[in-house]
Amino acid sequence: MEKLEMLYEGKAKRIYRTDKPGVFWVQYKDDATAFNGEKRAQIMGKGELNNRITSIFFRMLKKKGIDNHFIEELSSTEQLVKQVDIIPLEVVVRNIAAGSLAKRLGMEEGTELSQPVVEFYYKDDELGDPLVNDSHIDVLGIATEEERRYLREMGLRINEILTAYMRERNIILVDFKLEFGRTEDGNILLADEISPDTCRFWDVDTKEKLDKDRFRRDLGNVEDAYKEILKRIGGEAHV
Amino acid sequence: MEKLEMLYEGKAKRIYRTDKPGVFWVQYKDDATAFNGEKRAQIMGKGELNNRITSIFFRMLKKKGIDNHFIEELSSTEQLVKQVDIIPLEVVVRNIAAGSLAKRLGMEEGTELSQPVVEFYYKDDELGDPLVNDSHIDVLGIATEEERRYLREMGLRINEILTAYMRERNIILVDFKLEFGRTEDGNILLADEISPDTCRFWDVDTKEKLDKDRFRRDLGNVEDAYKEILKRIGGEAHV
Repeated sequence: MEKLEMLYEGKAKRIYRTDKPGVFWVQYKDDATAFNGEKRAQIMGKGELNNRITSIFFRMLKKKGIDNHFIEELSSTEQLVKQVDIIPLEVVVRNIAAGSLAKRLGMEEGTELSQPVVEFYYKDDELGDPLVNDSHIDVLGIATEEERRYLREMGLRINEILTAYMRERNIILVDFKLEFGRTEDGNILLADEISPDTCRFWDVDTKEKLDKDRFRRDLGNVEDAYKEILKRIGGEAHV
Repeated sequence: MEKLEMLYEGKAKRIYRTDKPGVFWVQYKDDATAFNGEKRAQIMGKGELNNRITSIFFRMLKKKGIDNHFIEELSSTEQLVKQVDIIPLEVVVRNIAAGSLAKRLGMEEGTELSQPVVEFYYKDDELGDPLVNDSHIDVLGIATEEERRYLREMGLRINEILTAYMRERNIILVDFKLEFGRTEDGNILLADEISPDTCRFWDVDTKEKLDKDRFRRDLGNVEDAYKEILKRIGGEAHV
């Protein structure tokens, strides 16, 4: 397999074309950004940790029947994935009020929600990834009603699986963000990453934050928190 | 009918109890506010104009089968309405991109939407009336799924009626905000007001704004614009 030209550089990853049709090469970076890119830093070892954590989650989800783009880990910071066309919607699922939801609805952080909340954000850096409702998605034409329903349903199913999986490892899954993509043959696959960059994880006993909020809120020990997540899900860090 | 104690003072109206059970006395004020109360002014005659305009719209809607809280005009600035418990959701319906929608979705103001957009905003001054989706409404517990569907449906029906009515009067209905309330016997009624304070109205030919955007954006001639709307819908101003 040959790594060819870079197709896209995001905040946390680079995507390359390969010589195999339908296969992309992903390289995880150590760059951390928050607040729509306003806050930036390098976090030593983050690329490796998120590559490993995402690989473990995607393999586990595949086993549980959630089809996704993951093919295989190539190196400590690289993985192969199936080529998809990313749907420009962030699918956020929340179990506990935190971050922007706590602010939006005036709820205290940590409040358990009476049922999981599903939100769609329009992936557009210039607009600051705004919250959108079904009606907005319709006029933007970025997903059909059937696709919207499917994304919502998948979000809730993945929430059930991930919540149970993390709970067994003494971690509360507070909320998380998913991205999906369309394959050439018209299927929708879970894509992107699942890591402490895209989830809120709290230790069950101490309620300690083991995710990107440590970076957003200057809590320190960002790398240690990510390492702890990897350890709890049975992976090994080489960093 | 006796006007008793004031129950509530909003940004544009005062609501009083009356000696008749189930009947409220509404007094429209000349106060204008925008941007969640950050911008304030008095607009001479606005109370009278909005009382008259709302009365005409609510009578017309009643005739077209849209049940609402309006009972009768009492004076130039006062009307009687049925007592309802306001549902804390602003139901916004949009035909053309303007204001916060243009900003949120990165659309140029004036862009015709491929279909009407319906939005719910959580009525909470402290939170700045945030946009909420169905999932948020569920966890806030402010409306059932059936009620949400009903509000959406009513918004779209009223949009059809109002759009046609204004079009005959050479006015484009760009967007508008509705509020609904629950009666004691459990029905949902259209309530609050429909006026240039709560709608965007553009002249068909000149595209001149004949609504509160004249105040928000310091375009001048606010009162004249409101008078023009009243004139076009067949009312008479005494101011």
